[in-house]
Amino acid sequence: AEVKKIAVIAGDGIGPEVVGEAIKVLKKTEELFGYKFELEHGLFGGIAIDEKGTPLPQETLDICKKADAVLLGAVGGPKWDNNPKELRPETGLLGIRKALGLFSNIRPAVVFDCLKDASTLKPEVLEGTDLIVVRELTGGIYFGEKFRREGANGQEAVDTCVYNVQEVERIVRQAFEIAQKRSKRLASVDKANVLETSRLWRETVNRIAPEYPDVELEHVLVDNCAMQLLRRPSSFDVIVTENMFGDILSDEAAMLTGSIGMLSSASLGEGSFGLYEPVHGSAPDIAGQGIANPIATILSVALMFQLTFGYAEAGQVIERAVKSVLDAGHRTGDIAVDKSKAIGTTAMGDLIVAAM
Amino acid sequence: AEVKKIAVIAGDGIGPEVVGEAIKVLKKTEELFGYKFELEHGLFGGIAIDEKGTPLPQETLDICKKADAVLLGAVGGPKWDNNPKELRPETGLLGIRKALGLFSNIRPAVVFDCLKDASTLKPEVLEGTDLIVVRELTGGIYFGEKFRREGANGQEAVDTCVYNVQEVERIVRQAFEIAQKRSKRLASVDKANVLETSRLWRETVNRIAPEYPDVELEHVLVDNCAMQLLRRPSSFDVIVTENMFGDILSDEAAMLTGSIGMLSSASLGEGSFGLYEPVHGSAPDIAGQGIANPIATILSVALMFQLTFGYAEAGQVIERAVKSVLDAGHRTGDIAVDKSKAIGTTAMGDLIVAAM
Ligand SMILES: CC(C)[C@H](C(=O)O)[C@@H](O)C(=O)O
Ligand SMILES: CC(C)[C@H](C(=O)O)[C@@H](O)C(=O)O
Repeated sequence: AEVKKIAVIAGDGIGPEVVGEAIKVLKKTEELFGYKFELEHGLFGGIAIDEKGTPLPQETLDICKKADAVLLGAVGGPKWDNNPKELRPETGLLGIRKALGLFSNIRPAVVFDCLKDASTLKPEVLEGTDLIVVRELTGGIYFGEKFRREGANGQEAVDTCVYNVQEVERIVRQAFEIAQKRSKRLASVDKANVLETSRLWRETVNRIAPEYPDVELEHVLVDNCAMQLLRRPSSFDVIVTENMFGDILSDEAAMLTGSIGMLSSASLGEGSFGLYEPVHGSAPDIAGQGIANPIATILSVALMFQLTFGYAEAGQVIERAVKSVLDAGHRTGDIAVDKSKAIGTTAMGDLIVAAM
Repeated sequence: AEVKKIAVIAGDGIGPEVVGEAIKVLKKTEELFGYKFELEHGLFGGIAIDEKGTPLPQETLDICKKADAVLLGAVGGPKWDNNPKELRPETGLLGIRKALGLFSNIRPAVVFDCLKDASTLKPEVLEGTDLIVVRELTGGIYFGEKFRREGANGQEAVDTCVYNVQEVERIVRQAFEIAQKRSKRLASVDKANVLETSRLWRETVNRIAPEYPDVELEHVLVDNCAMQLLRRPSSFDVIVTENMFGDILSDEAAMLTGSIGMLSSASLGEGSFGLYEPVHGSAPDIAGQGIANPIATILSVALMFQLTFGYAEAGQVIERAVKSVLDAGHRTGDIAVDKSKAIGTTAMGDLIVAAM
């Protein structure tokens, strides 16, 4: 088989531990399906700040650029939280998104059977919730000009939110296409009653919509969406929105499933290239203890197989293996009801590999 | 007693119906406490567009400016949704906030006993939830420069988010003061890892904090706050945040209580002047049927008594009357379990007046 290059960025906290298990899964698919993966490791985030003096070393960026896909663990931790901006892990995260042109962040929010009760929502409300938030990732207020200036009333700070038609079009088209492959419902979220960028967004969505006549489109104001996610989560299929709103709503959606520790995500650019990572963070409090749950990272590999490599079958094999291990009752500490029976990171990884 | 002037803006949809009941409550307090209210009515929102060609007629603004407080029903409806910007009810809403200097929006999110089960959250998670969102209301991306321009990649839209130190200070001080009168916990919400306005916000909060040593302060990133509201709603006391984040989070917080139809809000400026309104909208679908729930508007009067007039006792009398009517099992359709026993708007208003 063709060799696929994967840039592996373990990052900080529990990152290296969970990525280690995902790599075992990758290797297992080489054995099972005859795939060939070439892994190249890069420093990123806090560890890169410590070792290279910058959260995103050029070397790491080069490794990513030469790769077909990136597997990321997690970045950040209290150690770097009070650093100046250019020495903060988040700056690396924003930098890598921009440098790799990852304009689309795909966050599936699904409910895992074994975690049904972990949600703070009533089970009957959650029933059937299976949605995807498609978040624009390289535009908007995240990347617009930001500065301080002296104003009439003392110092003031400015952030600029900018979107052009093309930026909106490409993310919205992708969302329509994802909706077409799912339940064919798309909710476009904006604040068109207040923001000019939202009005451009909504016009663009409406202009494109006729090209996807099989997709049922609704426009939802962001404040209303924050409410509707709580009231009727299962009625959403695909949600598409701009960068800042997507940051907030994708976290709300993930949390309401109760399965946040198990969710994977993809950040995509033009073509098939993508960066895959668990939704959860670097969890510095439990780092190095061998107790982190590797499932979200392992499922990020499944997503990589489906979205970047077109290895649909192998992706399903991973997903099914995860499900069977969970069905057999195995749990890491974070998802165990009886904590005394919880297994560790590597044990969970081994079980999933064995179940493949 | 001193005559207090109240500008009454009934607005659209169910606005006139619910405001009508609130006025009955006002009159009852004149009788009980010897207060004197002078009510002056103004057109606003959709009805003002229809009758005066603008959502916020100068006449209405003058009435508000001469008043000690404003009581607002609700504005908007599908009829005006596709109007150009200057002929939309929201434009009036933003206009009145700015013109009256209402820089602070106070939204209590509490759980009504009789509505405990109306929430989509599990009762044990909701237990004890009683929080206030303090939202900055006249700054940020809502009021910054907005425009279109031709860019390298076609047309682009721009919104500008601006905050100066003074704007942040006054809202943050108010939030600290509210927290001091409550459980002394303040969560300041920002996106300081990305936005310059948020960094100014956080610096300002930290600079002011030592003046309120009895208040326990935490900084929460907006995406995390959207999650924590779901995970541990009862752990919040006062949340203070900028305009756009406040719009989203106050709606999320209101919805998770399950009591959104019963919640009141205050928008305050310098001094004691304030605008009071229910959190719910104009509900055009049930307008004119005499079935709308007037409780949120009646409780807005109680809030007006407490925050603007310093009529604390009368405010409590209203709140207690509402509680006793609910405890006796009376319900409007929106909160009735057995809809066949639901009572109408005026019946509910009459019962509350009688219970005072
Ligand atoms: C760390 C932060 C800059 C980042 C963001 O806001 O995009 C994070 O919240 C995320 O969603 O990936
Ligand atoms: C109608 C709209 C402009 C308004 C806002 O966003 O402020 C509303 O959502 C609110 O919260 O009062």
